[in-house]
Amino acid sequence: MSEHRPMDLLGRSLNSQVLVKLKGDRELRGRLRGYDQHLNLILDDAEDLTEQPPQELGTVILRGDNVILLSPSGKAPKKKPAKKSK
Amino acid sequence: MSEHRPMDLLGRSLNSQVLVKLKGDRELRGRLRGYDQHLNLILDDAEDLTEQPPQELGTVILRGDNVILLSPSGKAPKKKPAKKSK
Amino acid sequence: MSEHRPMDLLGRSLNSQVLVKLKGDRELRGRLRGYDQHLNLILDDAEDLTEQPPQELGTVILRGDNVILLSPSGKAPKKKPAKKSK
Amino acid sequence: MSEHRPMDLLGRSLNSQVLVKLKGDRELRGRLRGYDQHLNLILDDAEDLTEQPPQELGTVILRGDNVILLSPSGKAPKKKPAKKSK
Amino acid sequence: MSEHRPMDLLGRSLNSQVLVKLKGDRELRGRLRGYDQHLNLILDDAEDLTEQPPQELGTVILRGDNVILLSPSGKAPKKKPAKKSK
Amino acid sequence: MSEHRPMDLLGRSLNSQVLVKLKGDRELRGRLRGYDQHLNLILDDAEDLTEQPPQELGTVILRGDNVILLSPSGKAPKKKPAKKSK
Amino acid sequence: MSEHRPMDLLGRSLNSQVLVKLKGDRELRGRLRGYDQHLNLILDDAEDLTEQPPQELGTVILRGDNVILLSPSGKAPKKKPAKKSK
Repeated sequence: MSEHRPMDLLGRSLNSQVLVKLKGDRELRGRLRGYDQHLNLILDDAEDLTEQPPQELGTVILRGDNVILLSPSGKAPKKKPAKKSK
Repeated sequence: MSEHRPMDLLGRSLNSQVLVKLKGDRELRGRLRGYDQHLNLILDDAEDLTEQPPQELGTVILRGDNVILLSPSGKAPKKKPAKKSK
Repeated sequence: MSEHRPMDLLGRSLNSQVLVKLKGDRELRGRLRGYDQHLNLILDDAEDLTEQPPQELGTVILRGDNVILLSPSGKAPKKKPAKKSK
Repeated sequence: MSEHRPMDLLGRSLNSQVLVKLKGDRELRGRLRGYDQHLNLILDDAEDLTEQPPQELGTVILRGDNVILLSPSGKAPKKKPAKKSK
Repeated sequence: MSEHRPMDLLGRSLNSQVLVKLKGDRELRGRLRGYDQHLNLILDDAEDLTEQPPQELGTVILRGDNVILLSPSGKAPKKKPAKKSK
Repeated sequence: MSEHRPMDLLGRSLNSQVLVKLKGDRELRGRLRGYDQHLNLILDDAEDLTEQPPQELGTVILRGDNVILLSPSGKAPKKKPAKKSK
Repeated sequence: MSEHRPMDLLGRSLNSQVLVKLKGDRELRGRLRGYDQHLNLILDDAEDLTEQPPQELGTVILRGDNVILLSPSGKAPKKKPAKKSK
């Protein structure tokens, strides 16, 4: 049952790489060190992937209300080849 | 009675494909694995349909306050032929 | 007295066609199947009227904070002929 | 004393014409049938005055967080002739 | 001590002219008849000063979350002659 | 310990000049007469520094949710000469 | 365990240089003197890095809802050389 709660998935992602998309088209990646119930996050070795080349930010505290989505896989998203997926 | 509550419909959509429209014209599709009372969502095998071709995001945690609407049918919306529907 | 509460009017509109205007100039129509105190809504046979032709969305859960107004008449609004109404 | 509370003024405006200015430059007029403490409103015979000619919406439920101001006089505002009013 | 609370200053401004600046560059003036803890306001003989000539709105209920600032002096602000004030 | 709380610093700034930056690029200066826990502020002899010349507003009540930052020094910020500060 | 909470990391960053990114593309740096549970911050010797040259603001109280992220390292972020980091 506990797998059904977004906060529980965050708990199991501690110490893993996560990808975070923020409002305002900002995208960060880092190792999830902590979080709270507001989706405030601590990321270690965070990088701002929106910048080219990526900007190293070190440890950051992210305010949760800026978060759109978080992917615990931590991999940069892949484009999949166009097919009849729609 | 329970059918009348948006949260109950979410519960019956677990493990089904859902389509989610977000603020900022983003549109995702994935299998609903979890949710909470803030409409925070967990989607498995999520894709960003706004990208062409769709972007594979794997498992994502979506922050509820970005959600405009969620369609449990999970099918990409169809255009219907123009008729006197208005 | 109960007629005076917006939530009560929603209750009497269950299973009727409703028209919903959302922030960001989106307009939906569908049969109201459920709602809660945040104005989260369930619409069956929902259509996005902003698209031309209207886009069929099936059943949708609408997050209440996107709603500007909801018309229980469900009819697409009519223009009235210009007169000295102001 | 009760006159000092915005909600009390709403109560005395029931069944009267009101003019409502909304965020996003929308302006509605209608007969106030109900309200709650969030400034959610029910208007009967509502018209969207921003459209030319005004758009008839019938009965509407307005979500309070879109409201900028509400005028219980219900009259469309008059321009006053320019004078040294500033 | 009570002078230190913004709400107390509002209480002492009842029945006086106030100037209210709103989000979206709107500016109103009127006689403060009431308020509540959300900064919802009742203004009598309200005018929209952003319009030229000013628009007479009569009595209005202003939703507090649109307010940027309120000046109990009620006078339209004066420009002061440029000097080394910065 | 009490120095660590933003609200305590506000308390020690009473009757001093403060500089306030607001959302929407507005900048005010005035003498802090009061505040509450929402960061609602009372400023005496307030000036809008965004206007050129500065606009005298007298006493104002500022709604806290518009505030970005407040500087108790009250001095208009100085540009520092470019050096290797980054 | 306490390292997992964003607020605890703030506590350990007191008296250190921090870098703060705000909504609206503003970026500040300063020594963290205090904070509260809303992420309201006190920074000493704060500078606005968005300005060129940086603008000295002295001590500032930052309202937490403007914060996107805070980096306790306090160093201005470095660009890393482009490589196959994505």
